[in-house]
Amino acid sequence: MKILILRLGHRAGRDPRISTHCGLVARALGANGIVYSGERDRKLLESLKKVMKEWGGSFEVSYEKNYMSLIKNWKGKVAHLTMYGVPVQNVIDRVRKEKNLLVIIGGEKVPPEVYKIADWNVSVTSQPHSEIAALTIFLDRVFKGKELGKKFPEAMKRIVPQKSGKKVIEK
Amino acid sequence: MKILILRLGHRAGRDPRISTHCGLVARALGANGIVYSGERDRKLLESLKKVMKEWGGSFEVSYEKNYMSLIKNWKGKVAHLTMYGVPVQNVIDRVRKEKNLLVIIGGEKVPPEVYKIADWNVSVTSQPHSEIAALTIFLDRVFKGKELGKKFPEAMKRIVPQKSGKKVIEK
Repeated sequence: MKILILRLGHRAGRDPRISTHCGLVARALGANGIVYSGERDRKLLESLKKVMKEWGGSFEVSYEKNYMSLIKNWKGKVAHLTMYGVPVQNVIDRVRKEKNLLVIIGGEKVPPEVYKIADWNVSVTSQPHSEIAALTIFLDRVFKGKELGKKFPEAMKRIVPQKSGKKVIEK
Repeated sequence: MKILILRLGHRAGRDPRISTHCGLVARALGANGIVYSGERDRKLLESLKKVMKEWGGSFEVSYEKNYMSLIKNWKGKVAHLTMYGVPVQNVIDRVRKEKNLLVIIGGEKVPPEVYKIADWNVSVTSQPHSEIAALTIFLDRVFKGKELGKKFPEAMKRIVPQKSGKKVIEK
């Protein structure tokens, strides 16, 4: 299953860390790429690409100003993560059957047309929390927890898990 | 099981949104409270308390400058979430047996003494991503997904899940 994340409404001044975390989580938990919309932010893309290079794998990062055109031209289904949507546990079996999935995560205000065009508006609890947590649970449910063991080929850095302390192997 | 989150190294200027998300996620996914350390940030605590009031439940938010004293005086086990630790899937069955658990999530640099004093240093993948995602998976594994249906009594606002659009009931 190929999953692309679309992060709406990035604001370079206010959101750099949240948007960076969205990209890192998308990569670590098995998505294939992330597209940022909102303000163009070269530093954000560069810092993510640096991580990809150091830690391996083939995750793709890009920017797209016209996100509605990206959504309309997407060859596959579209899931929009929102606290107002249908519980993830109710739709995930259906979602998992798709080959190509676009997962939209919002910024502050998501326009109504996104709710309308999405095949699924999906909630991870109906409580206010975090697009990062929503994305995390969503990907975890799609991959049934197997994403936690994902390998990242051609990494320059690799961690060897330790009971205490840090062990990093560098090529 | 009672779970308290300890968020280390908050920086008022740089981290307001990440730290806010940590608190919101802790609450939404079933923890009992969060303690912030690092810089004292009254706005952060106030904005979280406002959410608690509106959305219900009994989650507790506070600040503690001397986090080592809090850890040392904790009556129960301590789990520290770090990408360098042992995979969550290897320790979670043991963790779930505890009655009182302190879960530490780091800021930029976590001092070595935290690694030493923790009963478990726990990783959620050994990839760089987000303390918000690590906390999310950790709580989800502790509660086996049941936290997604958690109720929040005495809420002033409540969402009714919709296939499209938003429905909020306000008291």
